[in-house]
Amino acid sequence: MEKHRIIALKKGDILRERGDYIVISGYLICKLSRQLIHFVNTGDFITTDMTFANDIFHYEARSNVQLILVEDGSIREAREKREILQKKTMMCLARRMDLFLEPVGRRFSMFVYQAGAEVGMVQDNTCQLPPILTHQEMAKYIGCTREYLCGLRRKLIKTGKMVDGKGWILLDWDEWEREAYLFYNLPEVLEAEKSLDRQV
Amino acid sequence: MEKHRIIALKKGDILRERGDYIVISGYLICKLSRQLIHFVNTGDFITTDMTFANDIFHYEARSNVQLILVEDGSIREAREKREILQKKTMMCLARRMDLFLEPVGRRFSMFVYQAGAEVGMVQDNTCQLPPILTHQEMAKYIGCTREYLCGLRRKLIKTGKMVDGKGWILLDWDEWEREAYLFYNLPEVLEAEKSLDRQV
Repeated sequence: MEKHRIIALKKGDILRERGDYIVISGYLICKLSRQLIHFVNTGDFITTDMTFANDIFHYEARSNVQLILVEDGSIREAREKREILQKKTMMCLARRMDLFLEPVGRRFSMFVYQAGAEVGMVQDNTCQLPPILTHQEMAKYIGCTREYLCGLRRKLIKTGKMVDGKGWILLDWDEWEREAYLFYNLPEVLEAEKSLDRQV
Repeated sequence: MEKHRIIALKKGDILRERGDYIVISGYLICKLSRQLIHFVNTGDFITTDMTFANDIFHYEARSNVQLILVEDGSIREAREKREILQKKTMMCLARRMDLFLEPVGRRFSMFVYQAGAEVGMVQDNTCQLPPILTHQEMAKYIGCTREYLCGLRRKLIKTGKMVDGKGWILLDWDEWEREAYLFYNLPEVLEAEKSLDRQV
């Protein structure tokens, strides 16, 4: 039987050891410098061996996290997984950058959608976000004040897109997905992403 | 005598041809998808051969531009120039990303400072920005409305940091530099940049 090394991280820890991993419990965020690029879910493959981008990205645990070090995969399989991750990371980076061209309301809703799509639990057309970011942190990553974020949140509740109460429970998830699809298929957005796609 | 190829671009053109270039007249911006990363001045070296970052960056002319294709440099020299550019581009990318963690007032003033530092004409402690972005475009890249940007501009004029009138003439440039220095040497900013520096 093969032995696998398990790495344990606490909330706030940065994954520093070199290697390819699969998340077996908990949540992380992928960051560039101080900014959030994308969320990482249990089951996701991540690597700190990101030669593709000069290792400018790093992973921060947002809960207790357990990772399994993947050592027994074929080199080809690891390379393919890294390539997929690379493509995803670059796409997320460009999308995050581009979002700051949008009004704060859209920045907010697309950020909430991103969290839902990447780490949300979808059931019966409802998507529940795990409690891994405070309102203050969300506001910081979106580029607005906490007060403004709370106002935007209230608007979502008023329009029936979110449950009123603790946490983040998004209603009518199909509609969230439809809106994100429409946004990412606007001609100028599509054009920018297409050129990215050709290049990555 | 060696012959050099000259490439001419018009405002809005994207540099598509592969190669290493020196800008002999005009201004460009380096973009990731739809977002501005940094400004490029006459005299600057740029390359479309950015294997380092999977070519996710591209250059857009912001005036009539003339570029000279650098073909005769030693391979080692070209590699060194590319490495310096890579380091600069990654630093600018991280700084641009990080700026969206800051309040809009600071985002604005650091963006204006970046433009001044990268393409401004400094004379007698005054820095004049070339007219390469409209107010609308600046607002877009900062992530605020044009009206809000105009308000922030008026504030700069009121506090004596900018000349009232057409264009962007920044007064007391030493003070702009001091403020930027202080910001980029805040403990959390320094820490993030240091880790970037280790990695690039």
